[in-house]
Amino acid sequence: MRNKDELKQQAIIDATISLVNEVGFVACSVSKIAKKANVSPATLYVYYKNKEDLLVSTYIEIKQLFGRKLLNNFDDSLPIRDILRNMWFNIFKFTVKSPEYFQFTEQFSNSPFSELVDRNQVEKSFKPVYQTVQRGIDQKIIKNVSIDIISAFLFVPAMTLSNKKICQSFDPSPENIETTFNLAWDAIKY
Amino acid sequence: MRNKDELKQQAIIDATISLVNEVGFVACSVSKIAKKANVSPATLYVYYKNKEDLLVSTYIEIKQLFGRKLLNNFDDSLPIRDILRNMWFNIFKFTVKSPEYFQFTEQFSNSPFSELVDRNQVEKSFKPVYQTVQRGIDQKIIKNVSIDIISAFLFVPAMTLSNKKICQSFDPSPENIETTFNLAWDAIKY
Repeated sequence: MRNKDELKQQAIIDATISLVNEVGFVACSVSKIAKKANVSPATLYVYYKNKEDLLVSTYIEIKQLFGRKLLNNFDDSLPIRDILRNMWFNIFKFTVKSPEYFQFTEQFSNSPFSELVDRNQVEKSFKPVYQTVQRGIDQKIIKNVSIDIISAFLFVPAMTLSNKKICQSFDPSPENIETTFNLAWDAIKY
Repeated sequence: MRNKDELKQQAIIDATISLVNEVGFVACSVSKIAKKANVSPATLYVYYKNKEDLLVSTYIEIKQLFGRKLLNNFDDSLPIRDILRNMWFNIFKFTVKSPEYFQFTEQFSNSPFSELVDRNQVEKSFKPVYQTVQRGIDQKIIKNVSIDIISAFLFVPAMTLSNKKICQSFDPSPENIETTFNLAWDAIKY
């Protein structure tokens, strides 16, 4: 079970996501977030220096959570196609259930706060992903292109198709998820 | 040359995009937008009923502009691969030069305002795109999947890779644009 501190911090993160999605980065404030999280502003300042720190930390928290979800059932001994197929299904599972996280990160990436993120802190959550892709490139299973390009065809389409706000008419059935993975695989395979 | 009315409307649209990108949908107001556009609020109300109408109209305006840019040099007599390759290059030309439009539409798509958009008004700007894709499907040149799926591999990756805020390290050189088109084509081709 999680301790009181962790529960409080989770309540603050949840309140931040929900308020930012509702009113945006500028209109949200530490006091409004504290109120929504049912903690005092003083408590919030125990965990976060200021609004900026809270927003950046929330972003990093979501990215790390996404990394963990993406790597659910990660098995390095499987063929690379199967490892990536499992990640593809994991993205749908996570995004369909928690679209609010993506609403937050998309807004955040387009905001000036995104320049404050320590990229290394985010990237270490995705290390096994990068290693798998690199292994695929070395073994001439995957095209020899940058990880940005691989991501644009492997993660971005899954995140787009599973986002109900953007893709109203796509039904994320297992069959459709399989079909779309075939397109992603055709894009990146050697 | 454009008349005074058109110039005023353009100034209002530009001010809306810039203010929304700066402070978000909630914190922006008709009076602040009018001020930024250098018109009186009364003038703004000649063209737009209210803030909601202004935001939705701005979104539709950008989408229609994007449709025109996408279809620049559209030539129905070319092979389907060449038609789509031309669109791919057009996306990069447009997004690299005008990232503020995408910042606005991405935020908009994730906001409650997006439900107020008359989809037909947006979709008619993309009709030749849909027709080309359908022709490709009928001739077994393109995979028989929905337009949502085709878009997720044909337009979304281009918009992601050309967005400097999201893809800091991708260099949109003609060579790299060509490489990435090959991935998109491999994804969607039959």
